[in-house]
Amino acid sequence: MLLYDGPSSGNCYKVRLLLHELDIPFERVEVDVMRPRNRMELLADKNPALRVPVLQLDDGRCLAESDAILWYLADGTPFLPEDAFERAQVLQWMFFEQYNHEPYIAVVRHRALVGDLDAHADTEQRRQRGYVALDAMERHLERNEFFVGDGYSIADIALYAYTHVAEEGGFDLSRYPATGRWLARVSSRPGHIAITA
Amino acid sequence: MLLYDGPSSGNCYKVRLLLHELDIPFERVEVDVMRPRNRMELLADKNPALRVPVLQLDDGRCLAESDAILWYLADGTPFLPEDAFERAQVLQWMFFEQYNHEPYIAVVRHRALVGDLDAHADTEQRRQRGYVALDAMERHLERNEFFVGDGYSIADIALYAYTHVAEEGGFDLSRYPATGRWLARVSSRPGHIAITA
Repeated sequence: MLLYDGPSSGNCYKVRLLLHELDIPFERVEVDVMRPRNRMELLADKNPALRVPVLQLDDGRCLAESDAILWYLADGTPFLPEDAFERAQVLQWMFFEQYNHEPYIAVVRHRALVGDLDAHADTEQRRQRGYVALDAMERHLERNEFFVGDGYSIADIALYAYTHVAEEGGFDLSRYPATGRWLARVSSRPGHIAITA
Repeated sequence: MLLYDGPSSGNCYKVRLLLHELDIPFERVEVDVMRPRNRMELLADKNPALRVPVLQLDDGRCLAESDAILWYLADGTPFLPEDAFERAQVLQWMFFEQYNHEPYIAVVRHRALVGDLDAHADTEQRRQRGYVALDAMERHLERNEFFVGDGYSIADIALYAYTHVAEEGGFDLSRYPATGRWLARVSSRPGHIAITA
């Protein structure tokens, strides 16, 4: 398998983390996501949204959207429950992640990493909405060890990716003790790798 | 089943459309999504993101996120393919819809419906990004009758919901002939209902 990948992207990290947990070998093709022309040339026939990650299977077929890739790789493994309602709950949290979490926490972190937090009029609004997402996670994690059922699943991987680096965007995670304990549970797994790995 | 619902919401319409296609009876509980206090009181213990739709099953369990609800209802029916790769492609397009389409096309439409398009600094940027999403759909539909495989699926329902009312937000769909033919294919199905139904 070939993973079209960006080194600082949490969305790409999700896929690498699961591939590592599943012990599936893969190669990485780095895409400089900061250069739009590069994205169009490399990704036009692979992902309609022109984003990484894209997973190219050995037969050449391509799959995009980080959480769809997680689902494809995890189905039939312990990382995705078998129960129909729990499977839907995994999707619920993954859609929450892409709609209520990533556009705020990942985008503010990205702006911090490239040094243009102040160049966007909506940075403060995005920061506030990021905290709303963290509040929702904390409420859930005060009563649950993981996001779905009683075990680690791709819902945890999806939410871990940008939460564990939220402080790079200036988010104060010390307000969220249950989330902090969950982050430690995830990062202490034997199959874990760092976002920089 | 009980559907916590908003009458103008395309996300809620997706679920009603599939329930109608599947001939599943349900009751609607209308949530005035314009009143935050109402949302918190009605939805706090049902959806961490405090959004509609929420589907409450007969045993009381609740499921949120429109596309997760579609998946739960469609699995095992002709509206969700059986092939593992096609199932992942359905998710790919549903995540595309929630990340690249809804925040632009649905949000601009919402602002047009409540009459405050000009009250937001980013309306024009959202309009442009909405057109980027429509461009991506058009490229796909120039070569395909439906979004995944050769039949109608919940990927089509997810993308139909806000695309077919995009003109209410001022989007010019006459630029997109393949998308226009796909909209007609969807709306001419025997099990179809209107967003106002």
